[in-house]
Amino acid sequence: MGIMASFIYEGHPAKYMIAFIGRAKEVAKLSETWGFRISDVRHLGPRFFMPGLVDTHIHASQYSYTGTALDMPLLQWLNTYTFPTEFNYKDLDFAQDVYTKVVKRTLRNGTTTACYFATIYTDSSLLLGEIADKYGQRALVGKVCMDTNNAVPHYKETTDGSSEETKRFIGELLKRKYALVRPIVTPRFAVSCTSTLLSHLGEIAKNNDLHIQSHISETKEEMDVVRELFPDMESYGHVYHKHNLLTDKTVMAHACYLSDSELKLFRDTGAAISHCPNSNISLCSGMLDVRRVLKHNVKLGLGTDVAGGYSPSMLDAIRRTLDTSKVLTIQDPEYKTLTFEEVFRLATLGGSQALSLHDRTGNFQVGKDFDALLINPVVPDSPFDVFPYESTKAILEKFLNLGDDRNIEEVYVAGRKVTPISGVRVVT
Amino acid sequence: MGIMASFIYEGHPAKYMIAFIGRAKEVAKLSETWGFRISDVRHLGPRFFMPGLVDTHIHASQYSYTGTALDMPLLQWLNTYTFPTEFNYKDLDFAQDVYTKVVKRTLRNGTTTACYFATIYTDSSLLLGEIADKYGQRALVGKVCMDTNNAVPHYKETTDGSSEETKRFIGELLKRKYALVRPIVTPRFAVSCTSTLLSHLGEIAKNNDLHIQSHISETKEEMDVVRELFPDMESYGHVYHKHNLLTDKTVMAHACYLSDSELKLFRDTGAAISHCPNSNISLCSGMLDVRRVLKHNVKLGLGTDVAGGYSPSMLDAIRRTLDTSKVLTIQDPEYKTLTFEEVFRLATLGGSQALSLHDRTGNFQVGKDFDALLINPVVPDSPFDVFPYESTKAILEKFLNLGDDRNIEEVYVAGRKVTPISGVRVVT
Ligand SMILES: [Zn+2]
Ligand SMILES: [Zn+2]
Repeated sequence: MGIMASFIYEGHPAKYMIAFIGRAKEVAKLSETWGFRISDVRHLGPRFFMPGLVDTHIHASQYSYTGTALDMPLLQWLNTYTFPTEFNYKDLDFAQDVYTKVVKRTLRNGTTTACYFATIYTDSSLLLGEIADKYGQRALVGKVCMDTNNAVPHYKETTDGSSEETKRFIGELLKRKYALVRPIVTPRFAVSCTSTLLSHLGEIAKNNDLHIQSHISETKEEMDVVRELFPDMESYGHVYHKHNLLTDKTVMAHACYLSDSELKLFRDTGAAISHCPNSNISLCSGMLDVRRVLKHNVKLGLGTDVAGGYSPSMLDAIRRTLDTSKVLTIQDPEYKTLTFEEVFRLATLGGSQALSLHDRTGNFQVGKDFDALLINPVVPDSPFDVFPYESTKAILEKFLNLGDDRNIEEVYVAGRKVTPISGVRVVT
Repeated sequence: MGIMASFIYEGHPAKYMIAFIGRAKEVAKLSETWGFRISDVRHLGPRFFMPGLVDTHIHASQYSYTGTALDMPLLQWLNTYTFPTEFNYKDLDFAQDVYTKVVKRTLRNGTTTACYFATIYTDSSLLLGEIADKYGQRALVGKVCMDTNNAVPHYKETTDGSSEETKRFIGELLKRKYALVRPIVTPRFAVSCTSTLLSHLGEIAKNNDLHIQSHISETKEEMDVVRELFPDMESYGHVYHKHNLLTDKTVMAHACYLSDSELKLFRDTGAAISHCPNSNISLCSGMLDVRRVLKHNVKLGLGTDVAGGYSPSMLDAIRRTLDTSKVLTIQDPEYKTLTFEEVFRLATLGGSQALSLHDRTGNFQVGKDFDALLINPVVPDSPFDVFPYESTKAILEKFLNLGDDRNIEEVYVAGRKVTPISGVRVVT
């Protein structure tokens, strides 16, 4: 009674879309309709396919210190660890090493789509795009923009320089016509950008119909600073809105402390939220009430926020989302905890909606690209044990709670098998 | 400038104690003093040894459903999932399968010492002891006692039956003279035991100078029930104290909601707390303020509490302890978050103190048994990346946050190499 799918080929470079979804018991009829041989059907045994995971917020450049340096709050953390590290990406060799490792690592962890922050450096940000393309990951890549307010002055741009380099970055990246890698306009956050720069970036995004990403209301201290920097603005949300940075292709990380009117602004503009629970806990930033966001009909996906979040695995993001929801229930027993099924949806379809990529990915649907993970819950070196009397649902829950890359035997992006990574990309 | 250690052999069965600890640059002198050949010294390269992890609270019998069934609060969860599952351990074949898997799994995860709850069945609880011995794990094993108040009446004992079987369990287990496996008196918790049974168990523990384990103040609902069941008692802590169950060989799981006077009772009696943060969050039970416990000079170790906690890895217990501490800081920015160094200590030495086994294990000290993990942070299939410019401290932190059993190349208990597990136990 398994479910089967097949692909049709489309365009150049090759992309594979889901052609049909049918039941295994109807294989004879399906093979006639779709013209495949029954002997070519792959039998999965205890394995199953699930949609690829969508990381809606990850700093590729911070991957080198992920798992460390979690001992101070956000603004201090940025000046102490982040900005000095990101400065290294002026050096393309340094960038090549870390970016290769983070793309390989996230693919191996099942991240078929990633929305990346790089650094202020255009050339190494382009390199990140090249590496994502090389290894076959679907990616939005942002050259970071920041022209003010940091304690590491050698890691800063001029206002005009930042706009110009953003234009160069976008132009160059688009020229390369990567199948699955697109640029995303990336003001770091309102603290790091002058109003002039935010205006330029809003305009650039509008003129080129581009994605936008930034951070919002991650910590209370940050909110105070933004209030001081933009005293005329009604709210943090309005700072971005007034600069045309809230659109239906915008994703904003964190949003722990948005007011009802800001959530309404998100819903009305179509802007989305990337929930990064590991980061929010690790930096003691706050706890997002996901259910409240969903009730406001605001799009929401999950993010690792490496390296504020220490794990580059979306399985961790799933677990920490459940944890945060459960802590909210501990605080108020009436609070309805998110179920693992709901969180699984957020990590896949929810993420694709948050990135406005749900026409191409996020679930198995005819006409979408085949972004998928082949899960083997009984792989020899598995991190968890399965017992013969367990249901399919229990096994999925075990994988989500206890599984890791060892259980992810194969990763597909747009129908191409991208892991295990050998030297060259394997096309199925 | 590495540190080296060697062992001396003691007793039968063989146990290896740490004979000396010295600096590698003094190897010539040390080899003379201790009579070993310099060519026999093992060079670790990027590897390092750390003390074995101590799981102060784990239900071996719940391992079959760990990672699932986390959708309801404690008392409901016990009746729905736990008691029906534990009933299966009447069947020795069922027990053999799960107990073998949990002992192998926890050893592989670096748990050199485990404090186990089994079930009410004496024979399969003895089997758990046999399996722990076979695979070389240091363990306290408890036959669970419960003679009242559960919704699964076929999984219950009579008061006298429970006492008699506890005596039989202790007698049988001690008779086998396992080197590292001891019995522990195990009333499930005050809700499940009549006052008569608690008295018997306190007496049995006293007469045989045995360890004691139970649960306390895990959830508010449970506390209400205990208050109703024992209306004359000053507090939940006093329920155990009045039955002679708080001693310096007692470990009580959870303790989320102890009053100052109960903490004082713990300190005065020498009773310890097992902090099980994954369980406390997963079942929405509560959040223990570890720093408050430590300020009261109460001994504290960490526990996985499988399957209320979904992970059988003490690395997870370390991470979730940090998370809980960080959530307390989010709630009150003045709260001093635990550092990863402090939590590392709780997972090793703290655990050995909580189990009153600190004369034998918990850290590297001359005269203690060699319970150790050989960590390889750059093992080929490692779940995290290490960069050349990283400090030793950063690498340890990365391992604690992101490492797993793949990084734990070898596990030693009392000087014996117990993993990788082949058919037979390898003696070094
Ligand atoms: Zn971020
Ligand atoms: Zn327990």
